[in-house]
Amino acid sequence: MNSETNPEDAEPFSIIDFEKGDGLIAAIAQDHRSGEILMLAYMNEESLRLTLKRGEVVYWSRSRQKLWHKGEESGNVQKLKGIYVDCDGDALILRVEQVGGAACHTGKQNCFFRRIDGGKIEDVGIQVFDPDEVYKK
Amino acid sequence: MNSETNPEDAEPFSIIDFEKGDGLIAAIAQDHRSGEILMLAYMNEESLRLTLKRGEVVYWSRSRQKLWHKGEESGNVQKLKGIYVDCDGDALILRVEQVGGAACHTGKQNCFFRRIDGGKIEDVGIQVFDPDEVYKK
Repeated sequence: MNSETNPEDAEPFSIIDFEKGDGLIAAIAQDHRSGEILMLAYMNEESLRLTLKRGEVVYWSRSRQKLWHKGEESGNVQKLKGIYVDCDGDALILRVEQVGGAACHTGKQNCFFRRIDGGKIEDVGIQVFDPDEVYKK
Repeated sequence: MNSETNPEDAEPFSIIDFEKGDGLIAAIAQDHRSGEILMLAYMNEESLRLTLKRGEVVYWSRSRQKLWHKGEESGNVQKLKGIYVDCDGDALILRVEQVGGAACHTGKQNCFFRRIDGGKIEDVGIQVFDPDEVYKK
C-alpha cells in the first residue's frame, strides 16, 4: 500500500510493521505546538487501537509488560493531535497536547534532560512538578 | 549516577541501558537547527562508540543485522551536534546536521511522511532527491 491507494480503502494498520520489533513499534511523543520531543515509548497493536479510539495516548510498558494509559496516575495525559508513520512502518510520531506541561515521571518537561557532552553528563531539564507530590507513595 | 555526579567522573555509557532492548536502544535523529524529527533507528553499544568517535552517526541495522554508517552509500551522512539521554536510559536524541537535506532512503526530507488521518493515509513528505539516482541499482 502506498500514497496512491484510494484514501477510502486505506487502513492505517496495514502500513505498520509490528513484527519487526516482536509486536512493538517505537512511538515518539512530540508537542504538537512547539515541536519539542517529549518522550519515546512503545506500542503494541492493542495500545495503538486504544489510542485512536480514546484520543489519548496508550503505550505498552516494556518494563511492566502491560498497557499504560499515559497520565493515568498523574493526570498528565497526552491528547492525540496527529500520527505520522515512518518509511518502513516501525516507528510513529505522535503529535500530542501534553496536559500538565510535563511528560516525564521525574516531573521534567521532557524525558531527554541529560545531555552528554564529551565525558560529561549535564542535566538540562526544566522541572515542572515534584514527582513525590504527584505520585503518592 | 545522577546530575550531581562530578562531571569529570561521569561516563556516558553508565547511564545507558542496553539490556532492556536486548542490546539496542532507540535513537531519534533530529535536525539540530529546525528541530525537525528526521528518523528513528537503533544503536548497539559499538555503534554508539563509533558515532562518538567519528562525529558521524552510525546505527545498528535491525533488518540487515550489521553496523550502518548512515549515508555511507548516498553521502548523506549525519554530523553529530549533540546527544541527549532519556530518563530511563533506553532512548537517545541525536542532534544532527543532515548532509544533503534528506534523511530518508526514499529521498524525502524525513522518514515520517505518512500522516494517518482517520482511516486515510496521506503522503505529506518533501521530496529532496530521486532515490533511483542516488542508490545505484
